[in-house]
Amino acid sequence: MNEETICAISTAPGMGAIAVIRVSGPEAFSITDKIFKPAATDKSIATAESHTALFGNIHRDERIIDEVVVTIFRGTHSFTGEDTVEISCHGSIYIQQTIVKILMKLGCRMAEPGEFSRRAFMNGKMDLSQAEAIADLIASTSSANHKLALQQMRGGFSRELNKLRSDLLHFVTMIELELDFSEEEVEFANRKDLKDLSEKLEKHLHRLMDSFHLGNALKNGIPVAIVGETNAGKSTLLNQLLNEDRAIVSNIHGTTRDVIEDTVNIGGVTFRFIDTAGLRKTQDEIELMGIERTYQKIEQAHIVLWIIDSTQVTEHIEWMAGKIIPRAEGKTLMVVFNKSDKITKEEQVVLDVLFKNYSKSRIHISAKRGENLDLLRAKLLEVAGLPDLERQDVVVTNLRHFEALSLAHEAILRVQDGLRNNQSSEFLSQDIRECLHHLGQITGLITSDEVLRNIFRNFCIGK
Amino acid sequence: MNEETICAISTAPGMGAIAVIRVSGPEAFSITDKIFKPAATDKSIATAESHTALFGNIHRDERIIDEVVVTIFRGTHSFTGEDTVEISCHGSIYIQQTIVKILMKLGCRMAEPGEFSRRAFMNGKMDLSQAEAIADLIASTSSANHKLALQQMRGGFSRELNKLRSDLLHFVTMIELELDFSEEEVEFANRKDLKDLSEKLEKHLHRLMDSFHLGNALKNGIPVAIVGETNAGKSTLLNQLLNEDRAIVSNIHGTTRDVIEDTVNIGGVTFRFIDTAGLRKTQDEIELMGIERTYQKIEQAHIVLWIIDSTQVTEHIEWMAGKIIPRAEGKTLMVVFNKSDKITKEEQVVLDVLFKNYSKSRIHISAKRGENLDLLRAKLLEVAGLPDLERQDVVVTNLRHFEALSLAHEAILRVQDGLRNNQSSEFLSQDIRECLHHLGQITGLITSDEVLRNIFRNFCIGK
Repeated sequence: MNEETICAISTAPGMGAIAVIRVSGPEAFSITDKIFKPAATDKSIATAESHTALFGNIHRDERIIDEVVVTIFRGTHSFTGEDTVEISCHGSIYIQQTIVKILMKLGCRMAEPGEFSRRAFMNGKMDLSQAEAIADLIASTSSANHKLALQQMRGGFSRELNKLRSDLLHFVTMIELELDFSEEEVEFANRKDLKDLSEKLEKHLHRLMDSFHLGNALKNGIPVAIVGETNAGKSTLLNQLLNEDRAIVSNIHGTTRDVIEDTVNIGGVTFRFIDTAGLRKTQDEIELMGIERTYQKIEQAHIVLWIIDSTQVTEHIEWMAGKIIPRAEGKTLMVVFNKSDKITKEEQVVLDVLFKNYSKSRIHISAKRGENLDLLRAKLLEVAGLPDLERQDVVVTNLRHFEALSLAHEAILRVQDGLRNNQSSEFLSQDIRECLHHLGQITGLITSDEVLRNIFRNFCIGK
Repeated sequence: MNEETICAISTAPGMGAIAVIRVSGPEAFSITDKIFKPAATDKSIATAESHTALFGNIHRDERIIDEVVVTIFRGTHSFTGEDTVEISCHGSIYIQQTIVKILMKLGCRMAEPGEFSRRAFMNGKMDLSQAEAIADLIASTSSANHKLALQQMRGGFSRELNKLRSDLLHFVTMIELELDFSEEEVEFANRKDLKDLSEKLEKHLHRLMDSFHLGNALKNGIPVAIVGETNAGKSTLLNQLLNEDRAIVSNIHGTTRDVIEDTVNIGGVTFRFIDTAGLRKTQDEIELMGIERTYQKIEQAHIVLWIIDSTQVTEHIEWMAGKIIPRAEGKTLMVVFNKSDKITKEEQVVLDVLFKNYSKSRIHISAKRGENLDLLRAKLLEVAGLPDLERQDVVVTNLRHFEALSLAHEAILRVQDGLRNNQSSEFLSQDIRECLHHLGQITGLITSDEVLRNIFRNFCIGK
């Protein structure tokens, strides 16, 4: 149990109709009681049941600050597992700040980022990967990353890890029993069973690690590099995709637009479009540097859209193909013939034949007229290789988890090695323990203050 | 009772730890019930008591959207006076929007700005001036305008108006009784008493109208024009005042800074500093236009700060005094000698003597070193002529109220005129009725759909 009582504004910063200030800790009730007067004289914070809302005034020095609704959450029934009060006040910035100042004067400390979630973890209300999922959930901007975060928060990932751990734990206990009887050469742990389990585990860990490639992309947006000549219509296409999306996620775009590439929500999945400098043969040093960056961006992408002006297909294309195709290896290269409204159907067929060796994925669009953009979107979703989120496949989205999984995976490979070489129980046990350790780090069974600090400092205040 | 059920995100726009979505109307419970599953199986929205909070999931098409806390407010016990549900969800923009979309699909309409407050008014939960005060309260950025708005919301202004109205109503009833007995020349209403009352009323209305000048200034910031030569240190002074304030009201400044003048919170009161072009003798047309604007700004201000570089007091000053002083008439002109650290105490005394005819209010500061700024702040508060907010003096802050008061005032002047000229009961009654009408418009006893629309459309969404 924490001794300090913390408080923070938990709603988005700025002015709104209402704002919520959260107070959690042993003094949450007694401090709030000093400044809150319920309108109904027969009610009080002290006597209110958990999960009840009281209407009344926040006052200080005989001055009323606001009319508020205060909701009481008692002890283990709260999010943090501590006595918690949520003050729902009018959303004036002045009022929000005044109430927080008063709470601080009465002994509350301003909560650090993520401190409410950290306390929920410390008080056993959730494990570490669930707490981490809250930050992802709050940051989620698309259906796909929302689903991943929610599933993780609800313990899907943790259950899977705990199952792996408990299987391993059984074995290591057996093996360690052998150590006590080391002179007698008994085998409590069946080596064949351990071999099967370690193979199963290795595959499982491998699959989880693999999912990170996609999970990370889903979280940050699947990177799509748009390449082509400058007048091929890259910007027109991007604007078309953006405009229809803007209405839905405008507040996100406003903030990220200057900093990173443009993200577009397609069918609930975030795609991160990376615009690149136009490619052409040149001797100009500066321009060559720009083109070099384009190549790098192709390498960062999962999908490469090669935009071609259908009216300008010259021998230059072959040179470009030579530059693009080797770099797009292992990725999905989609050829997008733009300005299709300016050529005939027959000419389109000719283009298809010309490019069929470059990519199986080809599409004719008119970015300007918005023609065939729906088809382009559908193709993007198709080639993105999304997991079956409905089937609740676990997808790893967190770098820390990926790193812990990799270390656990290395340990399990050593266990397999050890089994092949008939290593002693002592060595086997050590490697299994290490595997258990890394798996435990993910859910927070094993942790350190420094790790916790690093995890929670990226949270927003008030959660 | 409204037939439509409305919903809106009530917390500030953007991402936060949590967000609150409000649903109000006859279907609030039944609609929410369709998408909310309480974690405790023995709880439900249908059976929950008013003012209780339920933890559970928002789901749709067998997919979980979020873990939320839903608070139930039944019928007349809610803010709007209708069944209301507040859904406290994770503050992801995606989640907020998804829940609102689902609610709308199930039959909720997106609330118009201020519609919750409008319903509170329509359902008799508060009068119109109280509802209007909510918008002011939410927009309040300083202790002073917060106090004014809160007092109005809590009905201070309404009580005062209702008292005036009920006194008048008594009289008009008496006078109208006389009409029924018009042939008998009886006087049920004592003319002397009516004269006394109308005088009292006239004074009262006058005082309220007078308070608007200040109320409006408190609401928008008391306008202070800063005039002087360009190198007198105007910007340094403004920056000094701003820097110390920035920490407190930074989110406000960020938004208004580009649009209007800079506001500074001094002792809980907002001052709006209007920087002006430096004054000097010139023939340059463009520069003359800038100077003309400076003059206009002086006329808009309540307080004029004339900043003088203490080290550069030349005969030019006399020319400036000729320009500034006539325009500052009726306002408070304060002479601020800047760079006081660069001259001796004796030289300061000489300046005081030189300027004593220009203004009684003079102060020596060093903006750069921050010297005497506290004294300047204290003087500003002193000359602002603030009402005794602690004494709960009613201050009119709303232009609509001011206009209605002015019309009521005109009517009462006609009543006084009528009494002096021994006008018939019929005419007197008509003017009193008109006065009552205008007073009634303020609290919303008398209103029209158009007026209501105008009032509430300036509210924020979700309130």
